[in-house]
Amino acid sequence: MQVTLIAYTPDPELVIAAAARLSASPSSTTKIMEKMSPQRVDSLLAHLLASGHLSPFEHASFTLAIDGISRATSHQLVRHRIASYTQQSQRYVPFTQFHYVTPETIASDPELLVRYQQAVAAAHQLYSQMLDAGIPAEDARFILPNAAATSLVMTMNARELMHVCAQRLCLRAQWEIVQLFEKVKIEVQKVAPRIGAELKPKCYHMGYCDEQESCGLMPTLG
Amino acid sequence: MQVTLIAYTPDPELVIAAAARLSASPSSTTKIMEKMSPQRVDSLLAHLLASGHLSPFEHASFTLAIDGISRATSHQLVRHRIASYTQQSQRYVPFTQFHYVTPETIASDPELLVRYQQAVAAAHQLYSQMLDAGIPAEDARFILPNAAATSLVMTMNARELMHVCAQRLCLRAQWEIVQLFEKVKIEVQKVAPRIGAELKPKCYHMGYCDEQESCGLMPTLG
Amino acid sequence: MQVTLIAYTPDPELVIAAAARLSASPSSTTKIMEKMSPQRVDSLLAHLLASGHLSPFEHASFTLAIDGISRATSHQLVRHRIASYTQQSQRYVPFTQFHYVTPETIASDPELLVRYQQAVAAAHQLYSQMLDAGIPAEDARFILPNAAATSLVMTMNARELMHVCAQRLCLRAQWEIVQLFEKVKIEVQKVAPRIGAELKPKCYHMGYCDEQESCGLMPTLG
Amino acid sequence: MQVTLIAYTPDPELVIAAAARLSASPSSTTKIMEKMSPQRVDSLLAHLLASGHLSPFEHASFTLAIDGISRATSHQLVRHRIASYTQQSQRYVPFTQFHYVTPETIASDPELLVRYQQAVAAAHQLYSQMLDAGIPAEDARFILPNAAATSLVMTMNARELMHVCAQRLCLRAQWEIVQLFEKVKIEVQKVAPRIGAELKPKCYHMGYCDEQESCGLMPTLG
Repeated sequence: MQVTLIAYTPDPELVIAAAARLSASPSSTTKIMEKMSPQRVDSLLAHLLASGHLSPFEHASFTLAIDGISRATSHQLVRHRIASYTQQSQRYVPFTQFHYVTPETIASDPELLVRYQQAVAAAHQLYSQMLDAGIPAEDARFILPNAAATSLVMTMNARELMHVCAQRLCLRAQWEIVQLFEKVKIEVQKVAPRIGAELKPKCYHMGYCDEQESCGLMPTLG
Repeated sequence: MQVTLIAYTPDPELVIAAAARLSASPSSTTKIMEKMSPQRVDSLLAHLLASGHLSPFEHASFTLAIDGISRATSHQLVRHRIASYTQQSQRYVPFTQFHYVTPETIASDPELLVRYQQAVAAAHQLYSQMLDAGIPAEDARFILPNAAATSLVMTMNARELMHVCAQRLCLRAQWEIVQLFEKVKIEVQKVAPRIGAELKPKCYHMGYCDEQESCGLMPTLG
Repeated sequence: MQVTLIAYTPDPELVIAAAARLSASPSSTTKIMEKMSPQRVDSLLAHLLASGHLSPFEHASFTLAIDGISRATSHQLVRHRIASYTQQSQRYVPFTQFHYVTPETIASDPELLVRYQQAVAAAHQLYSQMLDAGIPAEDARFILPNAAATSLVMTMNARELMHVCAQRLCLRAQWEIVQLFEKVKIEVQKVAPRIGAELKPKCYHMGYCDEQESCGLMPTLG
Repeated sequence: MQVTLIAYTPDPELVIAAAARLSASPSSTTKIMEKMSPQRVDSLLAHLLASGHLSPFEHASFTLAIDGISRATSHQLVRHRIASYTQQSQRYVPFTQFHYVTPETIASDPELLVRYQQAVAAAHQLYSQMLDAGIPAEDARFILPNAAATSLVMTMNARELMHVCAQRLCLRAQWEIVQLFEKVKIEVQKVAPRIGAELKPKCYHMGYCDEQESCGLMPTLG
């Protein structure tokens, strides 16, 4: 899996702080981007986060190229609706080369691993033969497994990133989507340290765990 | 594939008409549900459609149970973001029985069909063996094919239904999602004839075809 | 202010429970609406709420007619984006009769109240004279005050209603929008008692108050 | 009215083209930002627009500071839900200085103009006196007119900008919101010429006018 930040709102934390400052200021916006020190930006963001005023965080967006996740995981990913996705098409693209993902639980069992690899290879072989026989890619792909690797470009704003990471950095989420958002966090943190630091599982925000089976990081209720 | 309307806004077309009438009326909403004949409702909806005033159509929602579509198709379906979905989980549900979808192009080739059925059966067999070996369902499913059948409950409002059908009833869309929305249209039409009648491919709305390869139903531009 | 529930998903709590049950069931959806007792529905909803699985609550929607709120408040209301609104137009509707809202802080000061009433009447008089002089309603309304009463039809799903009430039933929210959602809660509670009971300020969900100036209902942090 | 582009996705058209190219490519995203000439970007965008493949345009966002529009217009503006807004608060900000908007139809009638100016001044005077008397700003503002100027920061992606301009650059839209999006268009065009060129009224996209009273720019149907 590879996650690369390919575009983002320049000075994302300054843009958020400037917008937030406007909402409580009688002056016009024209000069709001001026004269705010990094310290002032940081303390303003901290204040917004502490008081739950999250809407200004929508003004900064991050566009990430995601490679090599399974379609099992991309199907989950695109359920987050406040985001934009462009995904590699299995309808239009014939895959002569075939990449796929192997879960660690399978990889660590040598016998199952061999059978898994054989089954994936057999599926891809039949896929290729169906293409050769004139079956359209959109139909031949029916035999491809959930393990098939896919690529996406995803754009998400900082508020939604915080929300999605609250769900998907929880260790009860599926391991591959946890890894995905751990990589997203690393990319975002490089250019927006305060926002990056806020990308954390929901239990950090709530102070407790609401999962049925807790990982033990935070206390459960009752 | 089975599509069943399990819930919807009662009197959906009256609710839309009442809301629309409010926007151009000086009186309060209290009596807007009264005294509108079916003819008046129908002509008001026709007027809204002709003039592109579509927002009142958001007040009526339709909840459909969808069974037996492939996960290839459900992955496309959930890309429509102005809707609500609850999908059968492959993470939590171990599938002892296995249903799957076979594209017509494969079904009509006896030799490929046999190989397709064998490949799907082999994938399900390995899946079951992995479950028996203690692999979690969320990992064992990596070997299941796109063909695997899934069930969803989907709620979509009438405006979005019109938009989605414009895209997905186009014969250039994937055949399974075309079939899905043909069934959705039939269900909606039973309880909301005027809305049902508006569920049609984009070329009917535009008067021309903007697809690269036209099905010939409407003229292309240039 | 008057709030009337004019339409809603029938059996809203059953629909939510049925959708939720599907997500963890290997069977098809066809029979999901059958054979669930009210007790089972209620306990399933309680479980979803306790574990933060809120998405099934999107399948039930409520359509409310809202009369007699100020445009100061309607401007705030429509900021909630996961909802549908049809609002009485000040562009197209000439208001010969003029209704308006008076805040309690002004109503309780007899001298200010008189001046407030005179100022509102003067604004409406100039508005009428501008209409008579041929000024379009969309321009004449520039002189109308924020106090001007408006009507809307609003459709919101149960998940978003819980989210919005968390913000707007907080006593630090503007008094008129608090009153609005108190009335919404009463209407929803009549037909969906469990959902209605969940319409409460954010501090009830969080267990503490994150406002800068607390009303004292819940403890603040630090 | 002043509209200033304060932030945007760098190389917005390249980002869109790169995302679009991924969807039909078997290779990974890693190198998608490389090696695309401006000519290639432009022709790819033209192709996407001609064929109605608009979703890649969501990957580029524009953040604009908007000053000096009336609250009559900001109330309309924020009805566009696929966007992010931070608005100057009339609840928290006491306005000692008072700016307001005067429609041209009123400004061009010397007698009405004087009365309009006097009425606005009287409203602001009462507002100030209510503040002095201890009335909270959130209540005193009830007397302020729709004409009151406001400031916002708005972030909208390129796809939604095209959609909103289709509605709001129509000459049947309210004159102030037409002016607003004419200025938005100028700002966007400076940094994204192809996208800027696509910001035009719906009749240009449809080839005809669907308004009840046409401005005559395009033919009506029937």
